[in-house]
Amino acid sequence: MYIKLPTGKTLDISKEESLLQALKRQGVYLVSSCGGKGICGKCRIKLLEGDCRVESTGKLAPPEIDSGIVLACQTFPNEDIIIDIPKESRLVVGDKIALSKSGDLLELVNSFGVEIYPLVRHITLDLPPPTINDNISDIERLRRSLGEKGLIGMRFVHRFVASVSDALRNAGWKITFGYTVSNDAVYISPADKEKERYGVAVDIGTTTVVVYLVNLTDGRLIDVGSTYNSQMRYGDDVITRIIYATESGGFEELRDSVVSDINNLLTPLQERHNIRREDIESVVIAGNTTMTHIFWGLNPAYIREDPYIPTVNFFPRWRAEFSGLKTDPMAPIYTLPCVASYVGGDIVSGVLASKMYRNSEIALFMDIGTNGEIVIGNNEWLVTAACSAGPCFEGSGIRHGMRATEGAIESLKIDPESFEPLFNVIGDGEPMGICGSGMIDAISEMFLTGIIDQKGKFVREVKTDRIRDGLDGPEFLIFSRDGTHIVLTEVDIENILRSKAAMYAGVSLLLKEVNLSLDTIERVYIAGGFGNYMDIDKAIIMGMLPDLPKERFSFLGNASITGAYLSLLSKDLRREAGVIASKMTNIELSVSRRFMDEYMSALFLPHTDIRLFPTVEKLLENRKQEI
Amino acid sequence: MYIKLPTGKTLDISKEESLLQALKRQGVYLVSSCGGKGICGKCRIKLLEGDCRVESTGKLAPPEIDSGIVLACQTFPNEDIIIDIPKESRLVVGDKIALSKSGDLLELVNSFGVEIYPLVRHITLDLPPPTINDNISDIERLRRSLGEKGLIGMRFVHRFVASVSDALRNAGWKITFGYTVSNDAVYISPADKEKERYGVAVDIGTTTVVVYLVNLTDGRLIDVGSTYNSQMRYGDDVITRIIYATESGGFEELRDSVVSDINNLLTPLQERHNIRREDIESVVIAGNTTMTHIFWGLNPAYIREDPYIPTVNFFPRWRAEFSGLKTDPMAPIYTLPCVASYVGGDIVSGVLASKMYRNSEIALFMDIGTNGEIVIGNNEWLVTAACSAGPCFEGSGIRHGMRATEGAIESLKIDPESFEPLFNVIGDGEPMGICGSGMIDAISEMFLTGIIDQKGKFVREVKTDRIRDGLDGPEFLIFSRDGTHIVLTEVDIENILRSKAAMYAGVSLLLKEVNLSLDTIERVYIAGGFGNYMDIDKAIIMGMLPDLPKERFSFLGNASITGAYLSLLSKDLRREAGVIASKMTNIELSVSRRFMDEYMSALFLPHTDIRLFPTVEKLLENRKQEI
Repeated sequence: MYIKLPTGKTLDISKEESLLQALKRQGVYLVSSCGGKGICGKCRIKLLEGDCRVESTGKLAPPEIDSGIVLACQTFPNEDIIIDIPKESRLVVGDKIALSKSGDLLELVNSFGVEIYPLVRHITLDLPPPTINDNISDIERLRRSLGEKGLIGMRFVHRFVASVSDALRNAGWKITFGYTVSNDAVYISPADKEKERYGVAVDIGTTTVVVYLVNLTDGRLIDVGSTYNSQMRYGDDVITRIIYATESGGFEELRDSVVSDINNLLTPLQERHNIRREDIESVVIAGNTTMTHIFWGLNPAYIREDPYIPTVNFFPRWRAEFSGLKTDPMAPIYTLPCVASYVGGDIVSGVLASKMYRNSEIALFMDIGTNGEIVIGNNEWLVTAACSAGPCFEGSGIRHGMRATEGAIESLKIDPESFEPLFNVIGDGEPMGICGSGMIDAISEMFLTGIIDQKGKFVREVKTDRIRDGLDGPEFLIFSRDGTHIVLTEVDIENILRSKAAMYAGVSLLLKEVNLSLDTIERVYIAGGFGNYMDIDKAIIMGMLPDLPKERFSFLGNASITGAYLSLLSKDLRREAGVIASKMTNIELSVSRRFMDEYMSALFLPHTDIRLFPTVEKLLENRKQEI
Repeated sequence: MYIKLPTGKTLDISKEESLLQALKRQGVYLVSSCGGKGICGKCRIKLLEGDCRVESTGKLAPPEIDSGIVLACQTFPNEDIIIDIPKESRLVVGDKIALSKSGDLLELVNSFGVEIYPLVRHITLDLPPPTINDNISDIERLRRSLGEKGLIGMRFVHRFVASVSDALRNAGWKITFGYTVSNDAVYISPADKEKERYGVAVDIGTTTVVVYLVNLTDGRLIDVGSTYNSQMRYGDDVITRIIYATESGGFEELRDSVVSDINNLLTPLQERHNIRREDIESVVIAGNTTMTHIFWGLNPAYIREDPYIPTVNFFPRWRAEFSGLKTDPMAPIYTLPCVASYVGGDIVSGVLASKMYRNSEIALFMDIGTNGEIVIGNNEWLVTAACSAGPCFEGSGIRHGMRATEGAIESLKIDPESFEPLFNVIGDGEPMGICGSGMIDAISEMFLTGIIDQKGKFVREVKTDRIRDGLDGPEFLIFSRDGTHIVLTEVDIENILRSKAAMYAGVSLLLKEVNLSLDTIERVYIAGGFGNYMDIDKAIIMGMLPDLPKERFSFLGNASITGAYLSLLSKDLRREAGVIASKMTNIELSVSRRFMDEYMSALFLPHTDIRLFPTVEKLLENRKQEI
């Protein structure tokens, strides 16, 4: 028997196997907080075709059940079936890029010229067993041996003290002793058994949560997991989440959901690689200021209120036992420092990964994610701003918008004569929607072919049936087959233009703040989800990116997780992250009149001042001549 | 209507009032962990006479109900009643001696020449409110202001960070900031409201738990509470408790019971003095090594196993939130350091209170409680030993033994001709038993009058009906009326002799260890429950105390709680407690052959070597001549 997915992918299954088990066995991981007991209600899938035996519907609501939703852990096939997996139910464990990336990452670490120095150090001690003549307490015995090795002033927290007596005796007094850089005791393990040492780097994005499982001995990336941030059900952006947390009292819920997202990723990673929970001995967290506050259990209310004050930017060390993470309870948690309410640890982490803070050349760092933050500077100074670009490039607020996953139109061309679109779909199956890079392509192509004007409005004179009137007004039909339609509406285009205008205006204003012209920027780092797939030329045509030579642009992908990975491995880089956060001057765009002017000018395609985009100007002239 | 107690005390009560409420209103406090809901089953009393309406019997077992046990919180009188309150049900709040003691204690603090310096310090800060141009995070704002006052390197734990934003805003940015001596942030309160500052000193005895509520501003003792350690139901001494903790898995139960004992005392003290839980901002704990380990949640197993190793002697600071104490959750807990498995923080605390470690004269410190510890030394050296004297002076293992509370025979004389005893009873009512000081009197009087011989056996030739054969063999009838008999049996006497012999042998051996003779001891401090009431002369006759001039003896009462009180108030004295614990050399008596010899010799009355007790020798000669 088989399970078929809408992308065409086919998996096998037996009658005795739940859908959850069969999917997991074949590398498709679902969110399953309760471990398949039918309690948490998270492994929802939609049954499109075929008959199944459903053992329990758990907490599913009657309308959900009517629409074909089942719990994968409680459902067994009676025949071949076709199912759809909603994005919220999906975990991604063991990314295919992981193995190739692992080498790149090690190279990156080496390129910084730092030694591997995780949050937890260790030392081997051979303690003299107690006798009636040497009967000091266990802690004092340990302290004495540490002192002989020059380690003084060690701090012992309650959990460690409570475990020390059995640990020393189980190890026969020959121990490996783990401790943090700030001299907090972490663990005792038997010296004769090589202890495995793992750490996790976590990027808590507003939309996705990514976990890197790392071998701390050699720095190797073992595996990767990612999932949608299940806070998404409370709102797409940080503002709606803050409102939910403060006004609806949903703070605990938000915190629980991000912690269980991380744990849901950790569990299959541990199972897959036979790693015990206790062997994960340190954690690094990177996230924007709101995500970090929520993870830390700090009420984010004041982030949203003028004058936008976070509770804390430089987070103290924390311990896993208090955070709820399923690692060694004693594992220290390092949190990437934040800069301001809307420039968080994810940006500091990204700047760290970019190395721009180490070079003398002036660079521009743009994180195009759910929000849109920019940094300009070099090894002497750094300025930053948050642009409120909104999550449209992640699919939110766009009729057929989606993330860059299987089924998304990722690139697109429009024939200038027939106006017929030609596109590529991730996974090569039928298109299901359009992702950020596809949107950029579509808009610049529609602009170049004259389908839309400088304001992003449809030019009704263009002779094609693809421009039509839809539910939200005019729209452009990208794809249709068997009742499936993928369109881009004028409302979608307005949203995208607002996003790109916010980003461009941010860059523009920051440059003015530091009295620099655009061409002093020698390098542009693009970070964020759809990084690698974006067509730079087209983003310039749209006026989202500044009109600079293409070779100055570099893609960093998810730079936040890369910086978290670097911080997990190096004490020097953790220190440098602190320096970056201290150095960065945050400019509040929302209170600047000049920003509004810049923004209004940038709402056009590519800009009201075409001289800022000489390449585009030339291109448009050429096109005119062609016609 | 009235409630009558066996001591003759009469209290009033109305039909609508539960016994618990009526007793509390008139200053008789019962253990009531659930606050009078009939759930915890701790406020048991025995109904001796009179009819009551019993609303619920909660968890009481049928045999208990049959024997007249009721829950005081669920029982309402229909007429005048007579009840008995088992000692386990009783809390003592607001000791009569408290107020007079308060002055003495302040004098004591002053006599040390130290300033009042509690665990938590405070400072007033006027923070500039955040603006859009000065929008650093709350923690960094606080850190900046602290830095301006020279306070750097402050540590902020999670609970503090989670509360800081609201606290700063509620205080309008003008705050009183509390922090520990080791630079841990504790609280923020509005600067314009004078914050009350209280602390609690706790003595966790094997038999009783005592709490001092102290005003930290002026050092005044506000009130006192005490109760029986409810771990008593698992055994009288530390060994049976350790066995219960380790072999029966009752560890958590033991820990919970001591924490709830302390909380049961704290609650009525707070109510009585209108003190909010948050205003109790520091805690000091003194207890023997086992009690301290159990309070700390540390498995005491290795304390009992050769070579008798505690998990920790020098305890780190702890926080109330983790201990379960109902004070400010952020309150730091200082634990008096222990010396060895059987010489604990209670002894260090007692030595601190005695000041013997500050003087050049050589002193002997004896704690005669559930165990029996001794210390010899001065300002240069200290040696100590635990004697395993057993809890018989607290009433345990003695047929009619009881603690020195209402109804106990506390002193006794025997007419040398008629052999009739004459005694005093605490509270002046009918005698209900005999306490430690009464036992010492009884034995020395019986010895002097020839009722018992040097070995503690009854001399059957003595012409009195008071020597008779009882259930356990020969016994001496001290009192009888209406079927109530109070006797001292030969088995009781054996127990008492074993106790006194253990203590004397300990002193003897310690002196030999340091090569000193008895007469070099210039001062003897007697600490422990029955301290003040013991007749020194009679304790010497019995051979329990060394035969030294009477003026060298001083009574300290519960020196452990006094030392805890001193530690609560002074940083210098906390440091000195650490020095005492480091300095003390512990001698393991149990492994010493010489100790067994000393012990065997001390089992006689007063001793096999009568030359060690010249005063007694003379007394016996005089008596002989009289006859």
